[in-house]
Amino acid sequence: MKNKTIAIVFGAQSYEHEISIVSAIAMKKVLQHKLVYIFIDQNRSFYEIPADIIKSNLFSSGQYKKFGQLYLEKKGFFKKTLFGMKKLEFDVVLNLTHGGDGEDGVLASLFKFYEIPFIGPRVEASVVSFNKYLTKMYAKECGVKTIDYEYYTKDDEINIENFPVIIKPVRLGSSIGISIVHSKEELDYALDVAFEFDDAIIVEPFCKGIKEFNLAGTKANGEYLFSMVEEPSKGDILDFDKKYLDFNRTSQAQEAKVSKELINALEDSFKKLYNNLFEGALIRCDFFVLDGEVYINEINPIPGSMSNYLFSDFNSIITTILENLPKVNLIPINYEYVNTIQQAKGKA
Amino acid sequence: MKNKTIAIVFGAQSYEHEISIVSAIAMKKVLQHKLVYIFIDQNRSFYEIPADIIKSNLFSSGQYKKFGQLYLEKKGFFKKTLFGMKKLEFDVVLNLTHGGDGEDGVLASLFKFYEIPFIGPRVEASVVSFNKYLTKMYAKECGVKTIDYEYYTKDDEINIENFPVIIKPVRLGSSIGISIVHSKEELDYALDVAFEFDDAIIVEPFCKGIKEFNLAGTKANGEYLFSMVEEPSKGDILDFDKKYLDFNRTSQAQEAKVSKELINALEDSFKKLYNNLFEGALIRCDFFVLDGEVYINEINPIPGSMSNYLFSDFNSIITTILENLPKVNLIPINYEYVNTIQQAKGKA
Repeated sequence: MKNKTIAIVFGAQSYEHEISIVSAIAMKKVLQHKLVYIFIDQNRSFYEIPADIIKSNLFSSGQYKKFGQLYLEKKGFFKKTLFGMKKLEFDVVLNLTHGGDGEDGVLASLFKFYEIPFIGPRVEASVVSFNKYLTKMYAKECGVKTIDYEYYTKDDEINIENFPVIIKPVRLGSSIGISIVHSKEELDYALDVAFEFDDAIIVEPFCKGIKEFNLAGTKANGEYLFSMVEEPSKGDILDFDKKYLDFNRTSQAQEAKVSKELINALEDSFKKLYNNLFEGALIRCDFFVLDGEVYINEINPIPGSMSNYLFSDFNSIITTILENLPKVNLIPINYEYVNTIQQAKGKA
Repeated sequence: MKNKTIAIVFGAQSYEHEISIVSAIAMKKVLQHKLVYIFIDQNRSFYEIPADIIKSNLFSSGQYKKFGQLYLEKKGFFKKTLFGMKKLEFDVVLNLTHGGDGEDGVLASLFKFYEIPFIGPRVEASVVSFNKYLTKMYAKECGVKTIDYEYYTKDDEINIENFPVIIKPVRLGSSIGISIVHSKEELDYALDVAFEFDDAIIVEPFCKGIKEFNLAGTKANGEYLFSMVEEPSKGDILDFDKKYLDFNRTSQAQEAKVSKELINALEDSFKKLYNNLFEGALIRCDFFVLDGEVYINEINPIPGSMSNYLFSDFNSIITTILENLPKVNLIPINYEYVNTIQQAKGKA
């Protein structure tokens, strides 16, 4: 195994912009590959940030702007120099842009269009996991249970009779815009909050005391590589401090004390969801277990700090992924049809 | 109503590259707005093609390369000149790139990232309609019937007992890679063909003599605008000549002779599918009717020649769409979280 150069892409127009910075910096501690950092600022300009001095206040202070701006063109990111455009050297991108732009398919599309190899969800996988409504229907189709829900858009009349419920904007990551509503009195405020972030929501019954288990993994070279199973020690909803800790994690998690049977059931559900939509990505599935049944809560196609803390050898997992990225087939275009028409016209 | 300048974007890395050229040229006859043409060649470079001389053999002969190359940057397409980058002037893009790049979410992502207003499906709508497997589950969730099917990926064991069936690659537009299979003997060849184009397929029972009805439309400013209903006079599957005619159509279609009841049922199904995923796009839904029930066969989020031939006033439909494009909300990023951490660290 030769060490590669990985370009960590992070930031962007996203409610999770800041969390992405935290995740990106954490990679320095857990990857042995050479890293280069490509920051996308809130205006969607690209900057190369030197890996040896990267820290969070470079971004909040605006100092990142003193580093070189990059331009995305065919097959790479380029810097303007006195002698023309100079390509930034790296072997593969690791997409660490959480939330909008990163997980909604936009960056995956850019990398596809400009033919840049990357670790991360492809366009379809991004869309299916970013939109909770699409995740629900996808999971059902794969034969994996999800918690019952109602889907509402902004203009719908909303009737909720049984409480508590949990209200979630369909498109946001982490816990942004999510409320637990215990009674009718609390409903309007929670709806206002959710619709501030999105034009559609889902409403689920809130099952207090439900068990939650996280499992990360990937499929490379036809084989699944799984992390340990963790039972996250969360409160009802992650507040910012907890989320910060979550995205900043670099030390090994504690393995959940669960039966081999449950681990098998979780891995089984993971496989059904992963195959083959998520190829090229390391994802984390957040499952619920209720009365012995496994439910998928969320598919994180770019988990906080890549869930490195769930793997005993995270670096080699990333190496395996980057050496087995999905193949890209380019279509040969030979103008057969147009030529046929031209000839037909010529004969007429 | 003031006339606008519309940039028609077409071509790209797609099995429908050539058909897209035909569609794009057809727009000259049916739009009264000023047009500029942006061609994406098979290497995904952009070129401005003068609207007054555009014709199909500019592309097959490679002559398009003599026109100026364009570069996609923030808020526009730019030409390199002696005096720096010059922006191509237009008000809105009309995405006329059929198939890959255009309908799979890639161009929608590029336009989102570079903040270019466009007529066409957004990223989610593209993904859901481009992948037939996702279309099936989406339609079901919306309460619109689809023909029963089996989904297979390349490595699956494929068992088909009842014939005839129709085999379709999940991701291609039009009729590419599709076969009707009448018996077990014909199966292997049909599977080879389909898997040549995609790594997943769907298999449906082939219902000969099923009625097909096409309905195009859009939603702008909260209101649905529908086309006439057409009963397309197709054979079993479109061959190239028929497809060419279809994408080249500019004269008014003949309205299907159907009951007001059926039209209502088709419009009802259209609304369920459109809302709100397809905002910003003019789409064509291809329906089947079997024993009085409506089934969705395909959602075309960028129909051939924009289905102009189904509307009595196509130009004003496009005008209404471009004046009512979905709003884009940019997220303010204030580094509140990072600053909190900095302060906490300072105090520690």
